[in-house]
Amino acid sequence: MHVIDVNIPQQAYKIAIAAPGLDRLGELMSELNLGKKVLLVSNPAIFKQYGERAIASLQAAGFDATSCILPAGEQYKTLTSVQKIYNAALEKRLERSSTLVALGGGVIGDMTGFAAATWLRGVNFVQVPTSLLAMVDAAIGGKTGVNHPQGKNLIGAFHQPRLVLIDPQVLQTLPAREFRAGMAEVIKYGVIWDAELFVQMEQSKRLDQMRYLGADLLQNILNRSCQAKADVVSKDEKEAGLRAILNYGHTIGHAVESLTGYRVVNHGEAVAIGMVAAAQIAVALGMLSSEDAIRQDALIQKAGLPTQLPTGIDIEAIIDALQTDKKVKDGKVRFILPTQIGAVEITDKVTADPVRQVLQHMRSVGK
Amino acid sequence: MHVIDVNIPQQAYKIAIAAPGLDRLGELMSELNLGKKVLLVSNPAIFKQYGERAIASLQAAGFDATSCILPAGEQYKTLTSVQKIYNAALEKRLERSSTLVALGGGVIGDMTGFAAATWLRGVNFVQVPTSLLAMVDAAIGGKTGVNHPQGKNLIGAFHQPRLVLIDPQVLQTLPAREFRAGMAEVIKYGVIWDAELFVQMEQSKRLDQMRYLGADLLQNILNRSCQAKADVVSKDEKEAGLRAILNYGHTIGHAVESLTGYRVVNHGEAVAIGMVAAAQIAVALGMLSSEDAIRQDALIQKAGLPTQLPTGIDIEAIIDALQTDKKVKDGKVRFILPTQIGAVEITDKVTADPVRQVLQHMRSVGK
Ligand SMILES: NC(=O)c1ccc[n+]([C@@H]2O[C@H](COP(=O)([O-])OP(=O)(O)OC[C@H]3O[C@@H](n4cnc5c(N)ncnc54)[C@H](O)[C@@H]3O)[C@@H](O)[C@H]2O)c1
Ligand SMILES: NC(=O)c1ccc[n+]([C@@H]2O[C@H](COP(=O)([O-])OP(=O)(O)OC[C@H]3O[C@@H](n4cnc5c(N)ncnc54)[C@H](O)[C@@H]3O)[C@@H](O)[C@H]2O)c1
Ligand SMILES: [Zn+2]
Ligand SMILES: [Zn+2]
Repeated sequence: MHVIDVNIPQQAYKIAIAAPGLDRLGELMSELNLGKKVLLVSNPAIFKQYGERAIASLQAAGFDATSCILPAGEQYKTLTSVQKIYNAALEKRLERSSTLVALGGGVIGDMTGFAAATWLRGVNFVQVPTSLLAMVDAAIGGKTGVNHPQGKNLIGAFHQPRLVLIDPQVLQTLPAREFRAGMAEVIKYGVIWDAELFVQMEQSKRLDQMRYLGADLLQNILNRSCQAKADVVSKDEKEAGLRAILNYGHTIGHAVESLTGYRVVNHGEAVAIGMVAAAQIAVALGMLSSEDAIRQDALIQKAGLPTQLPTGIDIEAIIDALQTDKKVKDGKVRFILPTQIGAVEITDKVTADPVRQVLQHMRSVGK
Repeated sequence: MHVIDVNIPQQAYKIAIAAPGLDRLGELMSELNLGKKVLLVSNPAIFKQYGERAIASLQAAGFDATSCILPAGEQYKTLTSVQKIYNAALEKRLERSSTLVALGGGVIGDMTGFAAATWLRGVNFVQVPTSLLAMVDAAIGGKTGVNHPQGKNLIGAFHQPRLVLIDPQVLQTLPAREFRAGMAEVIKYGVIWDAELFVQMEQSKRLDQMRYLGADLLQNILNRSCQAKADVVSKDEKEAGLRAILNYGHTIGHAVESLTGYRVVNHGEAVAIGMVAAAQIAVALGMLSSEDAIRQDALIQKAGLPTQLPTGIDIEAIIDALQTDKKVKDGKVRFILPTQIGAVEITDKVTADPVRQVLQHMRSVGK
């Protein structure tokens, strides 16, 4: 078992990476001095695969565990789904010492975390991420929330988990497209934080499907990515400064996701597109060499991720959408731009013109 | 202007009590280094009385201020109302540095605070309480939230205001029954914390309507009550221990409110009933002298507050409802019981029997 400490003042917690790990959930939770009642939240497909093992492990450790199953998909990451968790919490008579466990991808994790943040003004929360994206990103750092019909993650709260348990074996059932989406965040860590991780991936032959990765590389990707995220959020829990670098690729990415109704591209694909755009903007502003931008784009392509805008998207609509993004400060859009592989800068000096030009170059060929 | 400091680590703030104070809202807020955008939340009746002055004061200080008006009443303290604030926040394009101002009683304050806690994972929040209850209690301490159809305040978050501005003059338009409801919380502070405040009220002739109180007594009541609440929450922001004493009278009070559908009795009346019950339970357990219980009940009556259960209420249903109350720990109901005027203890040793007996004695005469 590999353990990473997330050193947030007053609420430090551990990320445990163990294969197999699912069967140790109860054991690891019983070290945390939690109340007996546990409500495990999942979606139908994931619960069918892994729910029984998780519940059995909880019960074996003496927890009184039941489940709440929500429909799958980003379009259900809403207050309405959270209200279903509230109803289950009420029916189960959860107390302040009780725990909500999220078993699923980032959608289940974000909603369960928001419910845990707001039920009885805060109950315990444990993350068991099952998608690559949730393992290396969404499950770590305490951001929770749901979408507003007009914007992603506009409603939310900070609420740190008491434990993050990662079992790499569950990735075997993750659809290939979802695996690739998670790779977008891994590549992000390489670009913003960990040049060595970037080089490891450059040297590997394929990155587009889990079965082409050696167990060692997968283990390394999980360890280093979780470490990168843990380092950044430990230094800046509430996004006062440094933590903003994790939004690399997300400024334009969020606009692309939202304008295509969260259906055409998934989160990771949108981030890939956003990273390509951000690197090009950095090149245009003379902050990044075009060699480094080319290296990044090559890695994104090797991971089977898109480097062009989805067809038909309106570029002016993207520029408009940037204004409602949470990363706006006093009306100016903040961009995270790379200066080399392994390092980024935060700037609010980017005007609409270079953004527009870069996006025009990123239109799908022939449209 | 009387100023009370609420010394919560990392988020200290001031309670300013000033008559008139409303016109100084903008000035006081401009000392806090907030963003330009302000969304003021109120209800139709209160906004009609005081909205213009508050908005004018904000605009004079350079803020870009608009309003969001929600329907009045506890029955609208719901996620649906909060979603209306979210929609206004989106329309107004609030940023993380923007501020939500609550102008109203505890209902407006709790909802606006919850919206401020969860919009963009937290924006600034300012309280301008207009009811006595909100001034001395709801506006201070950072508890925010809404009701679940099956229970009060089950959904919420801790989110401290940046400023609480109290203008005693607005109490002139507060309906007498609402004034009395606020007096219940004031009496609570006398019983749990401030025996001197209790004696001051014992010595006054009437307490049931604001116009019978001298300006000095009113000022004293506001200062001492706000000071009591500030003292307690500064010592224990998140209700780990001490803060629970503020729930004196609320354990049974919440059950009574919820079982009568939040319509027959208001919050303060329910708390009055809860305090009578708690003192009787304390007497039954030998923790409180019956003299002190009689003094408390006399003060409650002088304030025009009820000391008997509403007619027709089912006592077994109250006992049942105590179980879903947030103050349950590992299945045991926690009670706050007075040991003398000015001091209370927290106990989970109260069984159903004495509760049942006390409640039977508190049934309205003739039923
Ligand atoms: N809180 C944060 O800090 C943070 C960070 C990044 C992303 N997010 C959020 O995370 C969400 C995206 O997460 P995601 O990509 O995990 O999406 P997701 O939760 O929708 O999962 C993707 C799909 O994979 C399925 N799945 C997950 N694990 C599986 C497994 N082991 N086997 C088979 N199928 C599996 C899911 O059922 C779903 O259909 C977005 O809502 C995004 O906003 C949050
Ligand atoms: N957050 C906390 O710590 C906390 C503490 C105690 C109570 N509360 C909550 O506060 C709520 C009760 O607050 P409340 O008693 O203020 O109720 P309220 O907000 O409903 O106000 C009572 C009535 O008085 C009216 N009103 C308020 N100020 C007025 C004025 N100056 N002139 C004329 N009319 C005025 C309101 O419009 C309303 O009709 C409950 O929901 C309770 O749960 C919260
Ligand atoms: Zn992401
Ligand atoms: Zn109260």
